[in-house]
Amino acid sequence: MQMLDLIRRKREGQALAPAEIEAMIRDYTAGIIPDYQMAAFLMAVYFRGLDREETAALTRAMIASGEQIEWSSIPGVKVDKHSTGGVADTTTLVLAPLVAAAGVPVVKMSGRGLGHTGGTIDKLESIPSFRVQLTREEMIRQVKEIGLAVTAPTGKLAPADGKLYALRDVTATVESIPLIASSVMSKKIAAGADAIVLDVKVGSGAFMPDLESARELARIMVDLGREMGRRVVAVITNMDEPLGMMVGNALEVREAIAVLSGGGPRELREVCLTLGSQMLLLAGATCSDGEARRRLEELLAGGAALAKFRRFIAAQGGDPAVVDRPELLPRATDQVTIAAPSSGYISAVQARLVGEAAMLLGAGRITKESPIDLAVGIELKKRLGDYVNAGEPLAVFHVNDRANLETARERFLAAYILAAAPPTPQPLVYEIIRG
Amino acid sequence: MQMLDLIRRKREGQALAPAEIEAMIRDYTAGIIPDYQMAAFLMAVYFRGLDREETAALTRAMIASGEQIEWSSIPGVKVDKHSTGGVADTTTLVLAPLVAAAGVPVVKMSGRGLGHTGGTIDKLESIPSFRVQLTREEMIRQVKEIGLAVTAPTGKLAPADGKLYALRDVTATVESIPLIASSVMSKKIAAGADAIVLDVKVGSGAFMPDLESARELARIMVDLGREMGRRVVAVITNMDEPLGMMVGNALEVREAIAVLSGGGPRELREVCLTLGSQMLLLAGATCSDGEARRRLEELLAGGAALAKFRRFIAAQGGDPAVVDRPELLPRATDQVTIAAPSSGYISAVQARLVGEAAMLLGAGRITKESPIDLAVGIELKKRLGDYVNAGEPLAVFHVNDRANLETARERFLAAYILAAAPPTPQPLVYEIIRG
Repeated sequence: MQMLDLIRRKREGQALAPAEIEAMIRDYTAGIIPDYQMAAFLMAVYFRGLDREETAALTRAMIASGEQIEWSSIPGVKVDKHSTGGVADTTTLVLAPLVAAAGVPVVKMSGRGLGHTGGTIDKLESIPSFRVQLTREEMIRQVKEIGLAVTAPTGKLAPADGKLYALRDVTATVESIPLIASSVMSKKIAAGADAIVLDVKVGSGAFMPDLESARELARIMVDLGREMGRRVVAVITNMDEPLGMMVGNALEVREAIAVLSGGGPRELREVCLTLGSQMLLLAGATCSDGEARRRLEELLAGGAALAKFRRFIAAQGGDPAVVDRPELLPRATDQVTIAAPSSGYISAVQARLVGEAAMLLGAGRITKESPIDLAVGIELKKRLGDYVNAGEPLAVFHVNDRANLETARERFLAAYILAAAPPTPQPLVYEIIRG
Repeated sequence: MQMLDLIRRKREGQALAPAEIEAMIRDYTAGIIPDYQMAAFLMAVYFRGLDREETAALTRAMIASGEQIEWSSIPGVKVDKHSTGGVADTTTLVLAPLVAAAGVPVVKMSGRGLGHTGGTIDKLESIPSFRVQLTREEMIRQVKEIGLAVTAPTGKLAPADGKLYALRDVTATVESIPLIASSVMSKKIAAGADAIVLDVKVGSGAFMPDLESARELARIMVDLGREMGRRVVAVITNMDEPLGMMVGNALEVREAIAVLSGGGPRELREVCLTLGSQMLLLAGATCSDGEARRRLEELLAGGAALAKFRRFIAAQGGDPAVVDRPELLPRATDQVTIAAPSSGYISAVQARLVGEAAMLLGAGRITKESPIDLAVGIELKKRLGDYVNAGEPLAVFHVNDRANLETARERFLAAYILAAAPPTPQPLVYEIIRG
C-alpha cells in the first residue's frame, strides 16, 4: 500500500520525502518490496527524475545498506578516482602508481569489466600471480608501506546499489542521471576515500551521449560528495574514440607501462596528467594545477612512477618483471591485421563498437558470468582524424579463438566512418567541475 | 534480451510491431517474461502511450490468451453492456430485464465489486438462493427461454488481462487509457456479444477525471470494437455524484426494483433509458432513439420489465418474491442517520468518497479477498444542488458492524461541500460516440 503510493506520487512528478526514500531502499534490500514494484518506480524515475534532496536520500540509503570503510589509520588525504566507463581507458593503472609516487596515498577498490567497457581488476589479473583480493589489514599495511593498494570490492559495499543496479540492467532503467549519480557515489563514499576525482566520459564510447548530460551528471555527483563531507572534482573527458591504442586486458597493462615509462599515446597520457593533477590538488599535495602537472611529468620522465608500479605489483604478489619484459604478460596466438576497406580521413569512430568487437574476441564479458580471455584484444593503428589508404592496417586483432572473428571484424569496421575531409577536432578535456 | 529491447523502445516513445506485442503477451502469460520487466514496460506505456495499432494488437493478444465464447445458437443480435465503474450505479440490474423485455437477447457476464465501485454479481447474490454461476449450456437454454442470463465470468476469458490487471493494480499503472481500453474490450469481445454499449463514466466517482479523457477512452474502445467486427456505442455519463440514491448490494437491488416498477430516482432511470435505447438501436430492434425510448418507458410503466425481472430471478434459482416484498432481501440491524454538519447548497460531492464510506461499512471489498456484507450500505437523502439545513439528514447508513462506523461517517462527510450558492447544473449524459 505504502510503496504503491510512492510509485504513484513519483509517477505524478512529486518529490518524495528523504525518510520515504530511505524506508523504501531499506525495505527493498530486505526483500519486503518486490522487484516488480521497484521496477515500476525506477521507470517513473526515468521519466520524472529525482531532485537533489531525493538523490541525496537515495545515496545515503544505499551507503547505509552496507559497510562503510574507514581508513583513518592511514595518514594523509586518501584519494580515489572513478571513471564512468570507456574504451581503451587504462588511466587507473597509470594514475594509481603515479599519484602514489607523488606522495598521495591511493586506496582503491576497482571493478571488473562489463559489456564494452574494461575493468581495472581484470587488467591487473593479467599480471602473473597478481592478487586482486586483499584483506582490509593487508590494504592498510600495504598503503602505509608503499603508498597504494588496489583490490576488488569486498561485496559488502552498498549492497542495495548492487541489487538495484541488477534490476535496472534488465528493465531499461540504467540511463537515468540521478540513478547513475547515486549508484557511483554510494559505492565511492562507502569505500571511504577522503577525496574523489571523477572522470565523466562523454561521446560515442560513453554512457553519457552529450556534453549537457555529462555536465548534469558531474554536477550532481560533485554536490552529493560535498553534502557527504568529501572533496570531489569531476573532469569531463572526450570518449569520441578509444582513449588509448590498446583494448584488452594484458594489452592495456602494456600500454599503462608505456605511459608510466614516459611514452604511450598522447591522449591517454594527457588525460592521466589532468586527472592526476586534480588528485594531487584535492589531496593538498600541491597548490596549483601547473605545479601538479610538472611534478607528475617529472615522475614519469624520471622513472619514479614506473618504480612505484614495480613495487605495487610485487606487494600484491605479482611478477614485477613484466614491467621490463611485457612479453611475460599473456599473449594471444594469432595476430590478424584489419585493413581499411577504403581510403579517407577517419571522421568518426563509434568507440562503443570497438569495445564490443574486443568483447567478441573474448576480452570482455557479455554477461556477468562470462569468462574472459586476458590475452586477446585490439591494437589500434590509427586515430580519429588520421588519413588512411585502402588496405592500410586500421588495427591488429590479438586472437586466440577464431569463432567470433568475422563478427568482431564486422563490428569493428562498422565503427569507422572514412570521409573526404578530416573531422573538426574536439577537446580532449571539456571541463573541470568543482564543488 | 528481447523484452529489454521492447521496454527500451517503448521508453523512447517508439511504436512496437503488432507481432512483438502479441509475442510479449504470450510470453508474459506463460511466465517467460517476469513481472518486473512487465512492470517497467507498463510504466513506460503510462508515459508514452500506445497507438491504435499497438492497442489493437494488445487487445487481440489478450483475447487469444483464453477462451472466446460464441453464442450463435441463440437467435438475434446479442447485446452486452459495460460500465467503467461508478457509485450507486445499478443500471445493469435494470437494463438486463428491461432490454430483454423489449425482445433483445441479453447474455451477460458481470464482475464483482472492487474498491469504491459495486459489482452486479455481488448485488444479485443478495437475492436469496440466486445462482450467479451458470454453465454455458444453462445460459443458452435460459436465454432461449426467457431472453436473458447474467453470470459471473468463467475465469477463462482473457486470462492475460487478469494477470496484467493484477500487476497494474500494484504498480500504479492502472490509469492508462490504452491499457484500460484494451482490458475492457478484450473481456467484452471474448465474452462473445455481437453488440456492446459502453457506459463511460466521468467525474468525481469515476476512473476518468475529465471529459477529454473519457472521450479519448470511448473513442479508442469504439474503434477497437469495430476493428474486431462488433457494433459498439459509447455513452459518456456524469459521475459527479452517486447515480442512484442507494449504495450497497441489497439496497441497490431494491432501487433497481423501484426503477423497474416505473419509479426510482430520476437520474438512474434516465441513464437506464439512454443506455437501453442504444442497446435496442444496436440490436436493430428499433430504428430511432425516440421510438426505442418510448418502448422502454412503456415496458417500465406497464409492468413488463418487472415481470421479466421476476422470471429472470426464478430462472436462476432465486426467490422472485423479493420483487414484491423487498424486505425479504438482507437487511442491516441498525440504521444510523447522518446529519448535515452545516447549512447550504450541496455544491460538490466526491462520489468516490461516498463509495469508500460504503466500503468501510462492509458493502465493498478493500482487496479481492475481502468478505462483504450484502445488507449494509448507504441510503442517500439529498442530491447535488439540494439545499440542506444543519442537522437535516444527508443519508442513512445501514449498519451491521459498528467497528468502522466513525471512519465511514468521516469519509462520507468529507465527500460533501456545502456552499451559499447552488452549483452550475451539468448534463447527465454528455455524449454518445458511435463507430
